[in-house]
Amino acid sequence: MYLKRSPLAPAQFPSIPALAGIEMWSAETGAKYKNRPDVLLVKFAKPANVAGVFTKSSTPGAPVEWSRDCLKRGANSGLLVSAGNANVFTGRRGAEDVVKMAGFAAGALDCSPEDVYICSTGVIGEPLDLGPFEKLFVRNSFMRSQTSWEQAAQAITTTDTYTKGALQICEIDGTNVTICGIAKGSGMIAPDMATMLSFIFTDANISQDILQALLTDICETSFNAITVDSDTSTSDTVLLVATGGAAHKQITELNDPKLAPFKSALRVLMLDLAHQVVRDGEGASKFFAVHVTGAENDKAAKTIAMSIANSPLVKTAIAGEDANWGRIVMAVGKSGEKAVRDKLTISFGPHLVASNGFRAPGYDEDILSTYMRNSELEISVDVGVSTGAFTVWSCDLTHGYIDINADYRS
Amino acid sequence: MYLKRSPLAPAQFPSIPALAGIEMWSAETGAKYKNRPDVLLVKFAKPANVAGVFTKSSTPGAPVEWSRDCLKRGANSGLLVSAGNANVFTGRRGAEDVVKMAGFAAGALDCSPEDVYICSTGVIGEPLDLGPFEKLFVRNSFMRSQTSWEQAAQAITTTDTYTKGALQICEIDGTNVTICGIAKGSGMIAPDMATMLSFIFTDANISQDILQALLTDICETSFNAITVDSDTSTSDTVLLVATGGAAHKQITELNDPKLAPFKSALRVLMLDLAHQVVRDGEGASKFFAVHVTGAENDKAAKTIAMSIANSPLVKTAIAGEDANWGRIVMAVGKSGEKAVRDKLTISFGPHLVASNGFRAPGYDEDILSTYMRNSELEISVDVGVSTGAFTVWSCDLTHGYIDINADYRS
Repeated sequence: MYLKRSPLAPAQFPSIPALAGIEMWSAETGAKYKNRPDVLLVKFAKPANVAGVFTKSSTPGAPVEWSRDCLKRGANSGLLVSAGNANVFTGRRGAEDVVKMAGFAAGALDCSPEDVYICSTGVIGEPLDLGPFEKLFVRNSFMRSQTSWEQAAQAITTTDTYTKGALQICEIDGTNVTICGIAKGSGMIAPDMATMLSFIFTDANISQDILQALLTDICETSFNAITVDSDTSTSDTVLLVATGGAAHKQITELNDPKLAPFKSALRVLMLDLAHQVVRDGEGASKFFAVHVTGAENDKAAKTIAMSIANSPLVKTAIAGEDANWGRIVMAVGKSGEKAVRDKLTISFGPHLVASNGFRAPGYDEDILSTYMRNSELEISVDVGVSTGAFTVWSCDLTHGYIDINADYRS
Repeated sequence: MYLKRSPLAPAQFPSIPALAGIEMWSAETGAKYKNRPDVLLVKFAKPANVAGVFTKSSTPGAPVEWSRDCLKRGANSGLLVSAGNANVFTGRRGAEDVVKMAGFAAGALDCSPEDVYICSTGVIGEPLDLGPFEKLFVRNSFMRSQTSWEQAAQAITTTDTYTKGALQICEIDGTNVTICGIAKGSGMIAPDMATMLSFIFTDANISQDILQALLTDICETSFNAITVDSDTSTSDTVLLVATGGAAHKQITELNDPKLAPFKSALRVLMLDLAHQVVRDGEGASKFFAVHVTGAENDKAAKTIAMSIANSPLVKTAIAGEDANWGRIVMAVGKSGEKAVRDKLTISFGPHLVASNGFRAPGYDEDILSTYMRNSELEISVDVGVSTGAFTVWSCDLTHGYIDINADYRS
């Protein structure tokens, strides 16, 4: 197993203070991992509001189905996360196991099982062994002291090479509000033990519908704008919990100008976590942004940007520090979206490489080769149709990816 | 550069006799390759009928645009192919260069330039250097003796590790008819120097509209049912030339029962060539089929099969001989097509691994691991919705792919 810390990782886990209204405990079942927590239990202060976004997979795990129902019924007591087994494709037994897990958590948190979100991440297709799990909850001794944000972030990881957290502080109507979040994933995308989860907590006082609108909107340009290998997890879940403890009046309108700083801060935090996931992409050695402009609309721009970011030939060229822009032309062409070949413009960082359907006049291979040695790259493409624009972030495709994935289960 | 013959290659190039009505010459410009032909010139006996299928890329090369126009105007004198530079994304100059190439070929074949198909394959974005090319055609000395099918197949290759050819003989109305074809490609898909080209010749006497209908139909389940890495070439071209030299009455109806044996033989030949392309997939060590059944319709089945065959996680698991069927579940789930998770059935070869949304009762990891060591694998998936079915063929994703593509241009 490939556990060396990603060269693209941030220097360290951010310093995040405890958040009033959120209590967290972590525990170690020892089922799959040694010397690290693999269970996270979180209690939300009442009356918290919760928003959620889930995988679009048609083969979602039992925990995803449970948590979707939780969201529908307005569950807001707590959250239980387990790492090591995703409880996906486990039939009726999988669903029954989720109910049991909710029962354990409800006992520990003194609430109704229907009020606890459940998330699991790990191997697909293997029934859960609840034995070691149940033992933990017999005496709840792991709840004697609360866990730190960094330990919480560790408890939800699988193949991640580092723990991922972020903090933002902003004002709503003159009151300081805190947002903090943790995430796990080596891509949004790798199934098995690298599915993406993120849990974000704030003491802001925001009604559930506004919270959900914010989360859905910002997901589109953060967690839904990253890709490692184009594969979609069966367990992806993002939850945003607002305890309402901050001393401002509840926000109930999306257009309330008092919400603007919070929305900006939440966007920065979610983008930060999303980037941390890509920076931990399996085997990644380069982090790159693809900016597409001039598309028919924003949706078309996203399709083209994803076609570029997911192209194995583009990703391997970046790994090889090769400014092979012909592969960008290919990836635009295969996207299925409108592009005017003879107006196509491509830049690598500040360097124009192609314009109007031809190699740029000042094209200099040496300058480009030097640019490609950076560990963070920007690719900009204008497709010459209209004003649609979108940016996605991704990582390169290296031997490390093959090493990790060619023999993952053994 | 990775030039070791693919372990999945056929034992040898088939023995293909000369075909009456088709004259072929190959030549070496020396521009990019040493000691191998890189130019193929073909003359069709009049009145040949020609059918063609081209890349769907929105950034096609100048030769593709020229040959599409040839097809529209019923061009039927000949074909000129050059390997090493694809003449793609080369602007107005690229289009002018194609006209010049057609002029050279027309001089050599004594016909009109508008009557000659032009195909180029190789690097994208670099203007052609016509100098060495023009020299060849000054005295046409390369036309002193005709070339063999194997040499012709070699003249159109770029990164291919072996030459690809196929032969079929069948009867139309009691008359023997020959079909022979050559192809190049390490995937339908890799741009740069591995785009797919195929040229198929027959002495059958079939009207142009019927020839086109046959080619379009069979392409869908042969050349359009293979994938190496999901990337679509800017130069893909398949041409089918029927000289009409065979002594049977012209076929002018698609439903003519006399056409049935020809259609079968053409299908076998095109599938053979398509498989040869995948077997030369960059870095491939395993060849695998994905059979999807039970989909909403055949189109949905193809989308699901391609989602599985293109998944980097499925492809790396196969490379690692790991029966990681959870990744098949993931790839079905992400395809966007209808699938009933709790009816999903998956087999590897003859071994049932999952049924009705759960690991199969007799699941045996050891038996599966033994099966995965085969160099040819069959993955069957029933998604439990309706009767749509489709099969695609692909190859695994290995370190060889990264080696070839991470530093291709240098």
